[in-house]
Amino acid sequence: MKKTSAKTIGRLSLYRLLLDNLRRDNGITVYSHELAAAANCSAAQVRRDLMSLDYAGSPVHGYRITDLIESIDNFLDHPQGQSVALVGVGNLGRAILSYFRGRRPKLSIVAAFDDDEHKINRVINGTWCYPMADLRKIVKEKNILVGVITVPPNAAQTVADQLIEAGVHGLLNFAPARLKAPPQVYLEDVDMTMSLEKVAYFSRLRAEE
Amino acid sequence: MKKTSAKTIGRLSLYRLLLDNLRRDNGITVYSHELAAAANCSAAQVRRDLMSLDYAGSPVHGYRITDLIESIDNFLDHPQGQSVALVGVGNLGRAILSYFRGRRPKLSIVAAFDDDEHKINRVINGTWCYPMADLRKIVKEKNILVGVITVPPNAAQTVADQLIEAGVHGLLNFAPARLKAPPQVYLEDVDMTMSLEKVAYFSRLRAEE
Repeated sequence: MKKTSAKTIGRLSLYRLLLDNLRRDNGITVYSHELAAAANCSAAQVRRDLMSLDYAGSPVHGYRITDLIESIDNFLDHPQGQSVALVGVGNLGRAILSYFRGRRPKLSIVAAFDDDEHKINRVINGTWCYPMADLRKIVKEKNILVGVITVPPNAAQTVADQLIEAGVHGLLNFAPARLKAPPQVYLEDVDMTMSLEKVAYFSRLRAEE
Repeated sequence: MKKTSAKTIGRLSLYRLLLDNLRRDNGITVYSHELAAAANCSAAQVRRDLMSLDYAGSPVHGYRITDLIESIDNFLDHPQGQSVALVGVGNLGRAILSYFRGRRPKLSIVAAFDDDEHKINRVINGTWCYPMADLRKIVKEKNILVGVITVPPNAAQTVADQLIEAGVHGLLNFAPARLKAPPQVYLEDVDMTMSLEKVAYFSRLRAEE
């Protein structure tokens, strides 16, 4: 695999979302400046990003949408697909199970984990919920490389450590806590409360201006 | 209101989340290095951030947790509270209604909007859902400054424009699309699909290393 920056990967993922949308609206071709406008970057940036792909389309006559999606799929997705585990089946955990369900054929949450006996050993929002005691076994069995953390903040580091110990190399953390992870683990935080509070604060400033 | 950077506001919001947690665990005092460790920044950064507040606690003997929370509340929250609207009551919209429900007394989603006649004119996850046609009226009536966008990507810009036109000055966008907003509107994106795809990609790289 080529070395590509997190920003480029993020934009490729965003282009694919935009292209999926265009395809749904029966679009055939797209120009780099259209992707650029939608992704809030320059057309030159789009063309540079697409050069990471082995896509031979000509930017002069526009990119063919289906071909470009296929090239991004080949680049971003693992050919055999990737399995994800989610830990913490509260409100947010359940929402995230629903949100990601069927969204990407090559990337799916195949196991959920919780400690609550009312939640374990049954299907929740389409995903089987296992007890935490099975985490290590299931992560190994299902070859899970990615863990999504939706537990309360005071449990987040323990869960992260357990996931890493089980063999996970990527963590998507929704808990409002900053986690420690060794360099061989890629960690990304999604902090919705912080985001909303930031927007609320700056909306007042902007309204006063 | 003082001018403070988005990063500082984000960290203050994070400190408060951590402090809420400590208070729940019956903590009394906290040291800047403890907040720093939890927020993944330096203790000096914590002390600088806290100087934005009118908080007189001594860092030498630790900060009193309840006092520090109160100071951050006074800084981040509007004294009369702030009202938020959410547009798009699908899976993600409903999850976000549940997630933010009761989380902050001074920041609450007071109205939801959708176009689906099965969703409107009733309470969904604790929030009344209005038809889109009422957006402008309700935003004005309830003095709403913040809009949360959880519609499909192809509807997101139209919804953003309608919210801005109605008087909103802050947007939290969950739709996988980059939006345009004028400078008097603060815009923040939360892109969960992009985040998960990034983690998946880099988890493979790290696992191969």
